[in-house]
Amino acid sequence: MTTELSAPTADIADYAIRLGDDALILAQRLSEWSANSPEIEEDVALLNIALDLLGQARSLLAYGGGFTERSEDELAYQREERSFTNVQLAELENGNFADTMVRQLLFSAYQLPLYTALQASADQQLAAVAAKAVKEVTYHVEHAATWVVRLGDGTELSHDRCQAALEAVWPYHHELFADDELAGRIAEAGVGPLPSSLRARWQDLVLPVLGEATLTVPVDGWRPSGGRAGLHTQPFGYLLAELQHLHRSHPGAAW
Amino acid sequence: MTTELSAPTADIADYAIRLGDDALILAQRLSEWSANSPEIEEDVALLNIALDLLGQARSLLAYGGGFTERSEDELAYQREERSFTNVQLAELENGNFADTMVRQLLFSAYQLPLYTALQASADQQLAAVAAKAVKEVTYHVEHAATWVVRLGDGTELSHDRCQAALEAVWPYHHELFADDELAGRIAEAGVGPLPSSLRARWQDLVLPVLGEATLTVPVDGWRPSGGRAGLHTQPFGYLLAELQHLHRSHPGAAW
Repeated sequence: MTTELSAPTADIADYAIRLGDDALILAQRLSEWSANSPEIEEDVALLNIALDLLGQARSLLAYGGGFTERSEDELAYQREERSFTNVQLAELENGNFADTMVRQLLFSAYQLPLYTALQASADQQLAAVAAKAVKEVTYHVEHAATWVVRLGDGTELSHDRCQAALEAVWPYHHELFADDELAGRIAEAGVGPLPSSLRARWQDLVLPVLGEATLTVPVDGWRPSGGRAGLHTQPFGYLLAELQHLHRSHPGAAW
Repeated sequence: MTTELSAPTADIADYAIRLGDDALILAQRLSEWSANSPEIEEDVALLNIALDLLGQARSLLAYGGGFTERSEDELAYQREERSFTNVQLAELENGNFADTMVRQLLFSAYQLPLYTALQASADQQLAAVAAKAVKEVTYHVEHAATWVVRLGDGTELSHDRCQAALEAVWPYHHELFADDELAGRIAEAGVGPLPSSLRARWQDLVLPVLGEATLTVPVDGWRPSGGRAGLHTQPFGYLLAELQHLHRSHPGAAW
């Protein structure tokens, strides 16, 4: 796949890898749910979302890896923890079903305006990835929103769990909208939107859902960050061990 | 979904549940691989196969459950081990990647002639499920065949592992073609093919692949069976515990 793509610049490569890591890591988390979700139908839905994200990850990592002639598999299976540049939100543990769905809502509501903007990227490859992804992510937002409303506006138990999930996950959304030097250069070159510019659209997607779910928007306090710079939460190490175990123990082999 | 379907007869219900259990249980096994396969591309492929099988399971269990007014979720999550009627081949542990791919080849090469015949079923619902599934399963056979050849006709190590996988999995294929009273009545009613009638076509699919893979067809000996009557291998209990854990600990709840 990589060979068919034109090589990106160093900045665009790093940018593509950021977005690819987000998708790869969340796909890994979602697929951990398989056969543990409440319904077969929901199993199908979660696996479909995981597959969409894996597809985005493949395209983005294949393109970003082209700059340094690394395949998407090398990027996924052979990097150290500190080289992963996904936001911490994507790596948060699944927790219970409400935790997973709140995480999904906050993340997908970020991906939707991101990919919408990226469709007009000066970089044709990123624009093409975004054009495909935007349709997928539209569904992800709807699916997560449906569940958050169902749980939040459900029984007292489900409401309380959903509110607790929101409190736990909420601090991590700030990192989605943090600008840094790379993001600044990417925006200046017309390649992608400034992260901070996506916050208003994200709020337009998220806040009405929380309202319908009768959930209370948490007070902003702690703002964990550092994922884009390779700083990750403690459970990320276990996720990576799981993701890379097979490949590291038998490099290049099929087991 | 169930409510839209006409109710099957008792025999057709049991028959649909057999086939649905095969698909459900193998889907569960396959999704255990997620992020442990050798390539991101293969992760995508395995998850897609698992999703196809889950879709088949949903349709078949929803239809079969209609006779006793049980939903596909009740059938999946609330039955005891002895009530599952999948063949033992479907429940075999993943083992290494060769074990998984040999299991897939032997199973998909059974599903293909089965669903092909079922397209002409006197039962319209089963015919409709089969018409959709036959396209999916055609791909599953191709995918598994490609891997078995790649592994069998690969390095000495991969060949030896693939041969060992074939030896381990092979005994379980006999159960796929075992006729019993229910299968006899189903065939007589024009609802589905006699299992034994599918063996020739299965051999036509499997043996050339094994040849190209430079694998030796095992000598027939031990012929484990009993899955259709609810007798399962020891690891099946763990699979079921995993599948049903969430649902049993919080019946009807979303976690």
